[in-house]
Amino acid sequence: MNAGSLPRSVALIGAGGFFGTNLALYLSPQIEDVRCFGLSQSFPDAMRAIRWTSGDIASSSLVEVLAGCDTVIHLASTSVPGTDLEISKDAEANLMTSLHLFDRCVDCGVRQVIFISSGGTVYGPSSRVPIAESAPTQPITPYGLVKLTIERYLEVYARLRGLDYRIVRISNLYGPYQNIIKMQGVVTSFLAKALRNEALEIWGNGSIVRDYVYVEDAVEAMVAVMRYQGAKRIFNIGSGVGTSVNQIVASIEKLLERKLKVKYRLGRAVDVPVNILDCTLARNELGWHAKTGFLTGLEKTKYWLSMQNIICRGPSFIR
Amino acid sequence: MNAGSLPRSVALIGAGGFFGTNLALYLSPQIEDVRCFGLSQSFPDAMRAIRWTSGDIASSSLVEVLAGCDTVIHLASTSVPGTDLEISKDAEANLMTSLHLFDRCVDCGVRQVIFISSGGTVYGPSSRVPIAESAPTQPITPYGLVKLTIERYLEVYARLRGLDYRIVRISNLYGPYQNIIKMQGVVTSFLAKALRNEALEIWGNGSIVRDYVYVEDAVEAMVAVMRYQGAKRIFNIGSGVGTSVNQIVASIEKLLERKLKVKYRLGRAVDVPVNILDCTLARNELGWHAKTGFLTGLEKTKYWLSMQNIICRGPSFIR
Repeated sequence: MNAGSLPRSVALIGAGGFFGTNLALYLSPQIEDVRCFGLSQSFPDAMRAIRWTSGDIASSSLVEVLAGCDTVIHLASTSVPGTDLEISKDAEANLMTSLHLFDRCVDCGVRQVIFISSGGTVYGPSSRVPIAESAPTQPITPYGLVKLTIERYLEVYARLRGLDYRIVRISNLYGPYQNIIKMQGVVTSFLAKALRNEALEIWGNGSIVRDYVYVEDAVEAMVAVMRYQGAKRIFNIGSGVGTSVNQIVASIEKLLERKLKVKYRLGRAVDVPVNILDCTLARNELGWHAKTGFLTGLEKTKYWLSMQNIICRGPSFIR
Repeated sequence: MNAGSLPRSVALIGAGGFFGTNLALYLSPQIEDVRCFGLSQSFPDAMRAIRWTSGDIASSSLVEVLAGCDTVIHLASTSVPGTDLEISKDAEANLMTSLHLFDRCVDCGVRQVIFISSGGTVYGPSSRVPIAESAPTQPITPYGLVKLTIERYLEVYARLRGLDYRIVRISNLYGPYQNIIKMQGVVTSFLAKALRNEALEIWGNGSIVRDYVYVEDAVEAMVAVMRYQGAKRIFNIGSGVGTSVNQIVASIEKLLERKLKVKYRLGRAVDVPVNILDCTLARNELGWHAKTGFLTGLEKTKYWLSMQNIICRGPSFIR
């Protein structure tokens, strides 16, 4: 372990979403200068006390956010609309904007970029689980390929422009501030539906296995990465445990102490059948591991959903 | 070997440069419908009988070239001007234009794209030589990273859009139609300087080793790739022989039967020390191997340079 102090100033780019909201709320009491930047906020009420600048990465307000900033956490990710994804538009919206962000980081003298990558997609289907950082990277989706390409451009920026970086390959996050309206994340959306006594829809036979990590655990991993002084650049951050969709349902049933209604639909072929991350490197180098068991994480998420339900009064929010 | 017939119609995109000119001149007598597209021609006199359309990939004239076309060979590559390369501009000029080309290929019903990648840069410095196609790809330059990223996007286009593809990772080409004015390629430019009795400048101690393949050999490899019916997607195309800069000088001295003047300059650190391709897969799958020995290739290049010199009368061309 090579732990230093936290950075003096941090900018969160793409801070209005699920992970950004959690990070902003956790870091703000600990770091004096936390600046949040993004297109919009999913939970403006929660972010009221946070220093916030609205804009996209091409806008001049980005430079104001980056000026004099020590560490940048790059969380921005855009979903290109349309049922049939336009691959080149996705690259323009996600890859090119990332490179523009890195250009501005170089211009503004930012010391380090921490990039939130995707442990669930950059490795692709070929690796044996659990997957270590050294495994081959063979993404099969535009999303995974964009994440991997951004990672590789960070290496080039480090080499040619002296921009320090870390890459955090997070598995499937769940927990508070996940956007239920957009049905982000199977764990939180299933839990929300179960609380409303709605039937759950499962695509395929429910055997697809993912590594679900509770968002607070991932936030703590980010703090460890910010403090880290060692030589490793890429970290898997996950629970290290595989959970099938059917096991999620069983766990929610256990938590709520009742049977749930489940409808099975024909599966989508693009899904990787199993993804579980090997997080040994994070344990050894960062002194971090996921502490929250799945049932505990579910219970905390249920509590948050209930609070939201009370605050929002009725079903308009949890949808 | 799985050899079929040549495609009915071929479009060469970025056809005005060194390899494109060679390909166009070789393919035109064999394939009735060869369409060449590019920004400009390095050797317009040589290309007089070739069907040519000027334009960039964003222009509407591209669609006219691709319409009804069976196979597209993607050779286009843009050097972004400026001494200090802007990484994101390079990605915009080379990666994004490639994705736009692939979009148009999908729109126009093109069956197969053959992409000219870079055997000298996509592997990076970590691999042991000779390097097979299965070696890790760790490019350290923006040029190599763009080539690798285009390769990976082709996989995604094949999976999501049904666009068939092959990738040809060519080593260092030399031979006729290499642009001596731009000092493209150490072999041809050294030979041109030697013929003019000028001193050669070597950056470093001359120990850097590359795999130089004669351009006609690489053109024959492209024909074999176009005929290929098998399942492999990526082929190394090189001589399989390593030649140091000092060995190039020695070979030119042997060819010209005299000593050359050489000035050694302080070396550039970015260069990979050794690159030699393992071309066993091309031999087994395509029935291809590089036939032209280095001295023979030098002699043919010398002959071409002499002819150019006679045609162009004087030193203005060979510069």
